[in-house]
Amino acid sequence: MTQKNTTKEIISYSFKKLACEKAIDKISITHIMNQTDYRRQTFYDHFDDKYDLITWIFSYEVSELTELISFWEKREDLLFSLLTYLEENKIYYKKIFSNIKLDSFKDHFIYYIKKEVQTIVKDYYKNHVHSAYNQDSMEITTDFYTYGLSEMLYRWVLKDCIPQTNDFHELLIQAIPTKF
Amino acid sequence: MTQKNTTKEIISYSFKKLACEKAIDKISITHIMNQTDYRRQTFYDHFDDKYDLITWIFSYEVSELTELISFWEKREDLLFSLLTYLEENKIYYKKIFSNIKLDSFKDHFIYYIKKEVQTIVKDYYKNHVHSAYNQDSMEITTDFYTYGLSEMLYRWVLKDCIPQTNDFHELLIQAIPTKF
Repeated sequence: MTQKNTTKEIISYSFKKLACEKAIDKISITHIMNQTDYRRQTFYDHFDDKYDLITWIFSYEVSELTELISFWEKREDLLFSLLTYLEENKIYYKKIFSNIKLDSFKDHFIYYIKKEVQTIVKDYYKNHVHSAYNQDSMEITTDFYTYGLSEMLYRWVLKDCIPQTNDFHELLIQAIPTKF
Repeated sequence: MTQKNTTKEIISYSFKKLACEKAIDKISITHIMNQTDYRRQTFYDHFDDKYDLITWIFSYEVSELTELISFWEKREDLLFSLLTYLEENKIYYKKIFSNIKLDSFKDHFIYYIKKEVQTIVKDYYKNHVHSAYNQDSMEITTDFYTYGLSEMLYRWVLKDCIPQTNDFHELLIQAIPTKF
């Protein structure tokens, strides 16, 4: 872990803690930094604004979780990691997802899901669809899983992650077809 | 066709024609009714407002298309009818889908897709999943197909229905898994 990321992590930790306690719109940069040993200016050395911080938190935390398991045979583990992460942070993400001013975070979330799905689908096509390898078809498969999954995870968080990770994971695995 | 629907259809036809020519926000009820032989008041005998008219047009026209083919064995035909309908009306629906004031029409669109997917998935589960028949699982399958498909159709219309119906239909059939 670099020094730069350590500072970012400390700022993130402060923000996530505050976000679970009060409305996100009520949290100022001063609030966030008051909880750390840094000056207010340090925030701007690392982030443009609160929105930049929110997207960084998500990208950084999920990339730590999933970087080693983005291939087809591990798709169920990847999904499990992601569900576990969202459930562990459900108070925080419910606030983020339901804040209409942060509506564009959804695009960021979809973008992340798409990147993961893309890697997995590519891996599947490479190993299983020798004869009918087709770029257009692969893109459609990717889009379909991306939109289906993003919206389901989004709504799951908004419903307080019920059913819980283990049960929801099993249901998803069982109910989402993956045979072509 | 009832008299009530005939009047509604005439009003709808007038609105759809205007919507292809000018910005939806610029179309007044007076505009719409001036193109018909009815008085302005007749609009309000049938619809609450423009939004009510837009949702009626979609529900009425797609229900005519799809009412006889909402079961599992016909799922590809149903999808084809829907794509054909959207492509035939692509100038109109691109305007509707890209108007942010009509953002809640998307919910109506998703609701319609969900109803159709639900009927088809129920039919599939009834006939193919004897041993593992499971309400939760059926709901997850329905949600996944609903969100995946709605978003793909939405974005397809926004990209001027390219690739065209026949090709897009073939791609979807090929790339969306339906074996469990």
